[in-house]
Amino acid sequence: MNRSWSFISYFKYSSSSTDSNNILKVGNALKQVRVFTPSDITGYSQLTHDSNPLHYDLQCAKDAGFTSVPVPGMLVASLFPKIIASHFPGAIYVKQTLEFRSPVFVGDEIVSEVEATSIRQMKEKYMVKFVTTCFKDGEIVVIGGEAIAILPTLGIKE
Amino acid sequence: MNRSWSFISYFKYSSSSTDSNNILKVGNALKQVRVFTPSDITGYSQLTHDSNPLHYDLQCAKDAGFTSVPVPGMLVASLFPKIIASHFPGAIYVKQTLEFRSPVFVGDEIVSEVEATSIRQMKEKYMVKFVTTCFKDGEIVVIGGEAIAILPTLGIKE
Repeated sequence: MNRSWSFISYFKYSSSSTDSNNILKVGNALKQVRVFTPSDITGYSQLTHDSNPLHYDLQCAKDAGFTSVPVPGMLVASLFPKIIASHFPGAIYVKQTLEFRSPVFVGDEIVSEVEATSIRQMKEKYMVKFVTTCFKDGEIVVIGGEAIAILPTLGIKE
Repeated sequence: MNRSWSFISYFKYSSSSTDSNNILKVGNALKQVRVFTPSDITGYSQLTHDSNPLHYDLQCAKDAGFTSVPVPGMLVASLFPKIIASHFPGAIYVKQTLEFRSPVFVGDEIVSEVEATSIRQMKEKYMVKFVTTCFKDGEIVVIGGEAIAILPTLGIKE
């Protein structure tokens, strides 16, 4: 299944991460953008067997106070390990906290960002703590939280 | 896409939830079982665009200290909102903490459980805190954490 048509995705570093050697440092932020589609919601249901009508039934969503059906929060949250793994293949996820603060709707441009806040060497690997945030409309935080991952290297893969 | 062949799933209440009126109370636990397949891992990658080789490349997994490729943690964690939504359609997820303590492999029988630890009425809805845990082999905790969800009713849908 090729969903490449269904999203906009680009990679962006914060200005603090444009070091010449591309080695992750505290303060560096990695960002990507995604726009979810109706087929993403259907795909999530097929994969997880979660058929919460909140995400498919407009009346259910309106009864819950939303203007449209929201994208499942855990699908949006999957952007965080995706960013980390795309820059650090082989990364192992250890912890994640998630606060779902505002709904994400189909068509919203979601910017997800992970910012390294601590780095600890463990023999030949690195345990890195990130602040993880998804924004929409440039400023509204839709998901906040933190993650800890074990990275095989601090070299940032482009 | 019909994945009904690809998993075992059943519903189970803890003994404390066999009240005659099926109303959620503090201490009640809801459980389901799932066994992940290779196609689930592929489906997760297609949906999330996360191609971490840890989950597809046996050598990468071995380099990370695993005996096989682990199922993506966020896919396993999706069991928690799935359980809640299946018993409380229209549930809204507010928070989730996740500690990925042990790997899940294809074929492992994963029992996921959500246990209500506090219930607070909010006008006509309910904010419920759950302890969320996934076990394998009956006792090994693979994911620990907590969730908060807003439920439209405390009546447990069978």
